Amino acid sequence: MQPLTPDRLAIHTMTTKPWSLAQACEAYASAGIAGVSPWVEHVEPVGTREAARIIASCGLRVPAYVRGGFFVHPGDAEREAAIDRSRRLIDDAHALGAEMLVIVPGARAGIPLGSAREAVADALAKLAPHAQQAGVKLALEPLHPMYAADRSCVNTLASARDLCARVAHPSLGIALDVYHVWWEPDLERTIAAIGRAGRLFAFHICDFKAAPAHPLLDRGLMGEGVIPISEIRHAVEAAGFEGLAEVEIFSERSWATDQTEFLARIIAAARAAS
Amino acid sequence: MQPLTPDRLAIHTMTTKPWSLAQACEAYASAGIAGVSPWVEHVEPVGTREAARIIASCGLRVPAYVRGGFFVHPGDAEREAAIDRSRRLIDDAHALGAEMLVIVPGARAGIPLGSAREAVADALAKLAPHAQQAGVKLALEPLHPMYAADRSCVNTLASARDLCARVAHPSLGIALDVYHVWWEPDLERTIAAIGRAGRLFAFHICDFKAAPAHPLLDRGLMGEGVIPISEIRHAVEAAGFEGLAEVEIFSERSWATDQTEFLARIIAAARAAS
Repeated sequence: MQPLTPDRLAIHTMTTKPWSLAQACEAYASAGIAGVSPWVEHVEPVGTREAARIIASCGLRVPAYVRGGFFVHPGDAEREAAIDRSRRLIDDAHALGAEMLVIVPGARAGIPLGSAREAVADALAKLAPHAQQAGVKLALEPLHPMYAADRSCVNTLASARDLCARVAHPSLGIALDVYHVWWEPDLERTIAAIGRAGRLFAFHICDFKAAPAHPLLDRGLMGEGVIPISEIRHAVEAAGFEGLAEVEIFSERSWATDQTEFLARIIAAARAAS
Repeated sequence: MQPLTPDRLAIHTMTTKPWSLAQACEAYASAGIAGVSPWVEHVEPVGTREAARIIASCGLRVPAYVRGGFFVHPGDAEREAAIDRSRRLIDDAHALGAEMLVIVPGARAGIPLGSAREAVADALAKLAPHAQQAGVKLALEPLHPMYAADRSCVNTLASARDLCARVAHPSLGIALDVYHVWWEPDLERTIAAIGRAGRLFAFHICDFKAAPAHPLLDRGLMGEGVIPISEIRHAVEAAGFEGLAEVEIFSERSWATDQTEFLARIIAAARAAS
């Protein structure tokens, strides 16, 4: 495998949360990073049109717009509103030149996981034709089971694969984030099956620290934790993935540091971990 | 289903951590609780013989002695020492009149999960004949994937079932703790399969709060969180489980309260959740 040099990387803007979209894009481009995956939180303050101009002027590729979904709600009207929001985000993703929209499924106390999973399948079936028309892929991201109470009812790569196979639309596939699935039994085989089905859309990297200070906001830099990133990357590339590896790190500790230095550490960590 | 009245419950002594074994057993028995699952941490201060006397004098059943395992280490000598420790705990479980020894598999940064799982299978194959001779069952407990970095390389009920099927010894089965597996896809089917194989040894209850303050020490009382306890209990009983439901709650918040009042809350919560 080639080392993960900056020309093989994209960075999620939430990784450098303190920066505006313009600051992030300029810094990434100056460092030779190939792509940016903007978050809604960084696009909305400037608007989609200006965001598209900023990104294009920096010459960055856009693997993903992040993030739609959150389809699990008690009422029909709320569920429809969530689908409508994702429909608008698909249009925004198209305007940004993004290859895909990341979908976080959603979950909610009081709604059984079985019903929640039905709601997600239903929403994705409704959105996929619109995504196809817009030329934007939908990347369902299974989230770690520790988020099954409030963020995601799809908690393994294997169950995400099953859900995609059920909806069976060519615009629907999967975003694999090592943080969420590194522990999964039969990981390599599941990755290969997703690749064979042409549904491996994204590969997100970071690390899982053995004793995280916070379940959400203490992700590690590649190499700071226990995830066999190189091994998983090998499986992902063997499964046919040819896109950029996307760095996605939420870390209150890192956000509190100088972001230019943090970016340099990301680049060094990506190279070392691969 | 019958409500989970005290005569259908056992309590893990770690649930009422501030109490000594004697205080815990006396309080449980006074409240009509049927059983106690003592932790090593509560037995060692008094010794196994005295612990057995305390438990017997209170007339409590002993579903489980908690906990052996932690088989994952870098060196052969450490791995053998862990197996020896569990061998001694099997003898102690026998002396305590415990039906089973709970096995926490172990995990360790730097040891790939695949190798760790091999080590666990190897250790269980070595221990099972000794357990059988002692008349003590080994209950492998899969732990939530959030502990895959440092406590358990077996993170789903389905993979625990596969591991047990591979070792294939009648003294080896599974402890199902709702906290660890409630989110699992195909949970009901997996429970049924484990029951059919005669390997459903234990059923532990507590709750998973939607926003836990700590990943380990903020478990909820039954009904305080998102787990469909009644539904899982239905699946467990349909699978042939007839043992006591074991209450196992680690909560710094609860430990800081009056333990007698907490015990009353446990009893009320068990009844309400069932």
